[in-house]
Amino acid sequence: MASGGFASTPAPPYYAVVFTSQRREGDGDDYGRTADRMVELAAQQTGYLGVESVRGADGLGITVSYWRDEAAILAWRRHAEHTLARERGRQQWYEHFELRVAKVERAYGGP
Amino acid sequence: MASGGFASTPAPPYYAVVFTSQRREGDGDDYGRTADRMVELAAQQTGYLGVESVRGADGLGITVSYWRDEAAILAWRRHAEHTLARERGRQQWYEHFELRVAKVERAYGGP
Repeated sequence: MASGGFASTPAPPYYAVVFTSQRREGDGDDYGRTADRMVELAAQQTGYLGVESVRGADGLGITVSYWRDEAAILAWRRHAEHTLARERGRQQWYEHFELRVAKVERAYGGP
Repeated sequence: MASGGFASTPAPPYYAVVFTSQRREGDGDDYGRTADRMVELAAQQTGYLGVESVRGADGLGITVSYWRDEAAILAWRRHAEHTLARERGRQQWYEHFELRVAKVERAYGGP
């Protein structure tokens, strides 16, 4: 990840996983530790390109992770520790979430 | 947009524009008014499907807008008022931004 929270991604094509979520109240420390661990673990996976993540004061968050290809996304999905964390997310931490897998076709930065 | 900040998107395929930005200090009211107006105006465009947007306390934000196809994205890009707002964003409001256009291939929600 580039400084300032931006991912340094290569020229397209590559993949983005857009994860939008609404946190429930409570369980803050435990959630935070797991979220940090998932970012650390994701960065060790083959085909990982970077992540950008923001959560607002109202508990709505958007995390976009970038991957070389679909195979890398599927391998990360099957990772045992990540699978357990997702299950806790469903049961404890998220009131609602939407996940979208998308192929990045073009990209630019600025100003 | 669905209640709670989630976009109600149709079954894929459709397009996502992921806009990650770091705000500069200051110009808060003026920025806020323009950002609200752009959300209102985008929602009136043909092919617009929804938006999800979060900004953190540190000024990093992610806005994902969803569109029926590339033609809708290009038409919105050419919209005169949007073009002016983007120019102000480049000059005044954003320290840095990254924009990625991606085709959503699969999606699901939960818990």
